[in-house]
Amino acid sequence: MRPERKEWSEQFSEWFHRVIFEAKVYDYRYPVKGMAVWMPYGFSIRRNVLTIVRNVLESSGHQEVLFPLLIPEDMLRREAEHVKSFEKEVFWVTRGGGEELNVKLALRPTSETAIYPMFKLWISSYNDLPIKIYQVVSVFRHETKATKPMIRVREVTTFKEAHTAHATPEEAEEQVHEAVREYSKIFDTLGIPYLISRRPDWDKFPGAVYTIAFDTIMPDGRTLQIGTVHNLGQTFSKAFDIKFMKSDGSYDYVWQTCYGISERVVAALISVHGDDHGMVLPPKVAPIHAVVVPIPYKDADSKAIFNKAREACELLNSHGIKAVIDDRPDVTPGSKYFEWELKGVPVRVEIGPRDLEKESATIVKRVDLEKRVCPFKELVNAVERALEEVDLELRDRAWKFLKDKVYRVESLKEGKAIIEKRNGIVEMPWCLSESCGRTIEGELNASVLGHPIEDVDVDGKCVVCGNRAETLIRVAKTY
Amino acid sequence: MRPERKEWSEQFSEWFHRVIFEAKVYDYRYPVKGMAVWMPYGFSIRRNVLTIVRNVLESSGHQEVLFPLLIPEDMLRREAEHVKSFEKEVFWVTRGGGEELNVKLALRPTSETAIYPMFKLWISSYNDLPIKIYQVVSVFRHETKATKPMIRVREVTTFKEAHTAHATPEEAEEQVHEAVREYSKIFDTLGIPYLISRRPDWDKFPGAVYTIAFDTIMPDGRTLQIGTVHNLGQTFSKAFDIKFMKSDGSYDYVWQTCYGISERVVAALISVHGDDHGMVLPPKVAPIHAVVVPIPYKDADSKAIFNKAREACELLNSHGIKAVIDDRPDVTPGSKYFEWELKGVPVRVEIGPRDLEKESATIVKRVDLEKRVCPFKELVNAVERALEEVDLELRDRAWKFLKDKVYRVESLKEGKAIIEKRNGIVEMPWCLSESCGRTIEGELNASVLGHPIEDVDVDGKCVVCGNRAETLIRVAKTY
Repeated sequence: MRPERKEWSEQFSEWFHRVIFEAKVYDYRYPVKGMAVWMPYGFSIRRNVLTIVRNVLESSGHQEVLFPLLIPEDMLRREAEHVKSFEKEVFWVTRGGGEELNVKLALRPTSETAIYPMFKLWISSYNDLPIKIYQVVSVFRHETKATKPMIRVREVTTFKEAHTAHATPEEAEEQVHEAVREYSKIFDTLGIPYLISRRPDWDKFPGAVYTIAFDTIMPDGRTLQIGTVHNLGQTFSKAFDIKFMKSDGSYDYVWQTCYGISERVVAALISVHGDDHGMVLPPKVAPIHAVVVPIPYKDADSKAIFNKAREACELLNSHGIKAVIDDRPDVTPGSKYFEWELKGVPVRVEIGPRDLEKESATIVKRVDLEKRVCPFKELVNAVERALEEVDLELRDRAWKFLKDKVYRVESLKEGKAIIEKRNGIVEMPWCLSESCGRTIEGELNASVLGHPIEDVDVDGKCVVCGNRAETLIRVAKTY
Repeated sequence: MRPERKEWSEQFSEWFHRVIFEAKVYDYRYPVKGMAVWMPYGFSIRRNVLTIVRNVLESSGHQEVLFPLLIPEDMLRREAEHVKSFEKEVFWVTRGGGEELNVKLALRPTSETAIYPMFKLWISSYNDLPIKIYQVVSVFRHETKATKPMIRVREVTTFKEAHTAHATPEEAEEQVHEAVREYSKIFDTLGIPYLISRRPDWDKFPGAVYTIAFDTIMPDGRTLQIGTVHNLGQTFSKAFDIKFMKSDGSYDYVWQTCYGISERVVAALISVHGDDHGMVLPPKVAPIHAVVVPIPYKDADSKAIFNKAREACELLNSHGIKAVIDDRPDVTPGSKYFEWELKGVPVRVEIGPRDLEKESATIVKRVDLEKRVCPFKELVNAVERALEEVDLELRDRAWKFLKDKVYRVESLKEGKAIIEKRNGIVEMPWCLSESCGRTIEGELNASVLGHPIEDVDVDGKCVVCGNRAETLIRVAKTY
């Protein structure tokens, strides 16, 4: 019996708060607004996600580094457009011990202005290029909007930011494509569906030539930005004077890109795959793959059942499946199911009197709570197969949900009707002009995500001006 | 020919600065005093060290978590003794965006006051105990003393702090012993020699009942504190009101411990094992185990030599030995040796004309630059053996260095003579009284490390008061 997804979609916000708290993922009772604690179970999910991110980045030649948290005010102000957009949200350190500091220090809102002064020191000739580095750090924003656990926070504790420098604009452009491929691979591994959009110019990263963003869709139909890739051109290399000698002896400023994803990926992971029973974790990031629950029954030999359950647990672990046994004597099987389903453990193995008698085990997949009985001696294979199925089913379900929420319409009126129900992403023909884009935003009272990065064959007219459409504009209510 | 350790010991400070900079471990040219950048090679060493730390802690049941960076002023001030010692060094965030904050926020100098308010929420009965958590975070101290890269910094970027809570003082006491065993295991794995001392009461962690510390000795004879373990008793549980219900229904405050190690471990690792050629990394943390250097010679078939070198590199990697080839055509073998020795790669494999002819390979151990020739088909085994030897030789050499620098003397005068040469650690009979300890510190113009944690059979008299000695006092110049 597949758990419903009613509470999940209709009261998503309450569902999310309840689940991450009760499953001991994330405790937001910390006494500073917008800052929270990653508890052991949540930390473990976060770690597994980061391992996937690191593997993808390192297999394409990125090297991990670590830069300081604090950025002197004059550095932060070096690139005018950049600081303008961040300064309203910067936390400032102004005192050290009892003294006023001579130079105010910003808690990094992002690290361009921390990293690029060092690039200037590291780069002198084309031999030093390309540079491809990344770091995983906390970034800080004094959010004035209402905060939301993991989604809109004042300390983003898991910001993975990559920064690259290249000798030519073509290489930087190719790096943007590589980053888009890498992020796609990361989200695919996590089964998180996404749309890739080129953000409109009025919503690009401050200082960037252009920004490409990944958005997923949350159970309530609003979109969540989960990753961004920026072509920085020479904006920052000019501001920070990062020059290099070319092979012909002449000098140029380097061409740069940067791209980031945050703990929103964990929020997305939990949100897109969940149901009314709680989280459903893809096996690739689940801290526990399988929970073994012994089911004693009044007349049965409960000691033998517990022993068999322990045997099952050991067997699974010895084959690389992270299994735990829940052998608490004073808790009913029903309560145990409830807890482990909430925690999203992808597979449950039950050992009851019948299993003991028939030398079998009962396997329950978290995604649909489908039960199947297998011979005990085939347990490892059966659990492995169930894990693979959960992985695929989650991905398929999530992609189907997203695709069903993308509406291609031909007029503002139709678009407005869909957005008013807060019901997904609207795609409409667009001439690419900012004025029409802004009009659409205003009329729909929603945000422009941008347009697809691939060429779209739009045989229609811009929904505002009626001129020939160049692409599709994507509009949604966003987080 | 074993590289000398003359520059290493006599100009240690210059040696250390030069080596971490030139080997691209750590770049301290960042524009804020006491804050620096972990470069890719250094980050990789740091990561390998952290993996060892994590494995040791997790195999003894510690769970990783992550708490916020910022601590509200009222929390930080909750435990009077604690804040008194830190407040002179706290960085304060006072502004967010354009606004003055209502409550000042401290950058964590350590996390007791961030974590324990949450312990209060997490702990209600004996069933919730023990709690054993840890986190790896940056901590901040507005140091007024001169900063030193990795050793005395304002952002300690790799602070591993564990925090535990227990139902009884006996359990907390046992946890201190466990922590001492775990830290010993970590330092043993890294081949870092240490003395374990119970710090004198006037130098314990603020708020602790007592503090046990690990000190190693640097090449210049000064000691470096590399780890501390604190029994906190009920100091903080009373300040933060962390009560639990015992099994008999009565209530008590929990008993706590905490223990930390920082990036000083990386500094120690580099310092204790180095020599005049640069770093010598233990294979367990070396980012690269073996570098393969082809040695073309005028008449020899250099293409065949390069191919053989590539074959060697692939062979090693396919057996889990992290090997790189340095096949730069325009760099002499001598320059390559210089660079890789500086970087501390534990084994070098050379392939020259003779090796090609005789189907052999030449193996050079970084620790003593001893050369040996092995049949090419035994390369993997020979490199593995060389790595093991390097590991053991480094450990033995480092321990011998430390032991040779510990001087047992019977009088203040002898002690003073040794310390004046800045030549190591002095152990002298001591009555355990603070006044005699302070006198010793004053007379020797050095710091008291404390006394051994095991009982010492001292058949002598306190070097100050002449009363019966209870233990040995350890005194040294410290970092």
